[in-house]
Amino acid sequence: MSTTPTHDIPVTLTISPDGGIEGRSRRYEKFRGDMAGVYRDEAAWKASVDEHGADELIYWVDDHRYQEGPGALIVGTSTLLPGRVGDEFAVTRGHLHAIADRAELYHCLSGHGVMLLETVDGHSEAIELTPGKAVNVPGHWIHRSVNVGDEPFVTLFCYAADAGQDYELIADAGGMKNIVVADGDGWKLAANPDHTGYRKA
Amino acid sequence: MSTTPTHDIPVTLTISPDGGIEGRSRRYEKFRGDMAGVYRDEAAWKASVDEHGADELIYWVDDHRYQEGPGALIVGTSTLLPGRVGDEFAVTRGHLHAIADRAELYHCLSGHGVMLLETVDGHSEAIELTPGKAVNVPGHWIHRSVNVGDEPFVTLFCYAADAGQDYELIADAGGMKNIVVADGDGWKLAANPDHTGYRKA
Repeated sequence: MSTTPTHDIPVTLTISPDGGIEGRSRRYEKFRGDMAGVYRDEAAWKASVDEHGADELIYWVDDHRYQEGPGALIVGTSTLLPGRVGDEFAVTRGHLHAIADRAELYHCLSGHGVMLLETVDGHSEAIELTPGKAVNVPGHWIHRSVNVGDEPFVTLFCYAADAGQDYELIADAGGMKNIVVADGDGWKLAANPDHTGYRKA
Repeated sequence: MSTTPTHDIPVTLTISPDGGIEGRSRRYEKFRGDMAGVYRDEAAWKASVDEHGADELIYWVDDHRYQEGPGALIVGTSTLLPGRVGDEFAVTRGHLHAIADRAELYHCLSGHGVMLLETVDGHSEAIELTPGKAVNVPGHWIHRSVNVGDEPFVTLFCYAADAGQDYELIADAGGMKNIVVADGDGWKLAANPDHTGYRKA
């Protein structure tokens, strides 16, 4: 048991169901032009950039952290705007934690989404999220948010501050094994024929 | 980077703003009779046991965990019923994590409460929580939920599965340094004259 005193002073965070945290440490934004290689249909993505502009907001993240001790947590909101690129619903880049065993909570605050989850050895799951639904993403699962609704998909997340993100793993594999595509008024999983399997790090 | 495959399969959790998780791993309950020594006014607590019974529910916790790898998280809800013992508002036992540097998120889902926070070296903070307010409790902070409202005080929590709880630290110190007492229609902090200071573990 460590008794090292901390100089972190607890602060109030005000979390909006529409996304965003008063009291955040930072905000970052991802724009359409940042999403090269993320969607399978590259031509559809390029056409969408021509139509909407490279500087159109796709998703944004607020998060809060203190000084990072070994047991620190990062708390944030992810707000993924609705839309499609070809048949594929709007997605975040997705990641495996750099320290792969680190879990992450996602708790849906608003909207309608899917958490797409895969392991490097080929397991795949999809968890549908609407307000009040959550998933405790276990360690060793690559994960990506997908907005399958018409409104912003907002999740509260929480994960260990030392976890880090490996964003290249998905790109190096030709995308995730599954993609989430339109199916009438709903969504379905489809196999991504470009997926080459994940490298074992 | 570890690539140990996991056998944890992600599951959907359904989190009620009234407390409770469908998909939980366990539920535990604390009754009035379990709260000996928790409130400063022992006579008022004994009188409340005589009036309401030792088996009256005070708070209950649902939580979810997978197999516990080193990076695993426990996600849960805490539901603390309203009430007072003498002037003191209803509280949970409170704890420092056994691995003291482990942080914990509390996100208020309903009700009106206070997170009371203290360090072993004498710092004290109180964060008022209403729906949408949250606190990322830093490592090394003893913390306890207090219900200062008229409805159940429900928080979503998330913390490292290896953190553990030291519940004895507060009892060994004669209670927390501060208590939360009625002040007209509101609440205020009051110094607990029985507090003897925390042991340094």
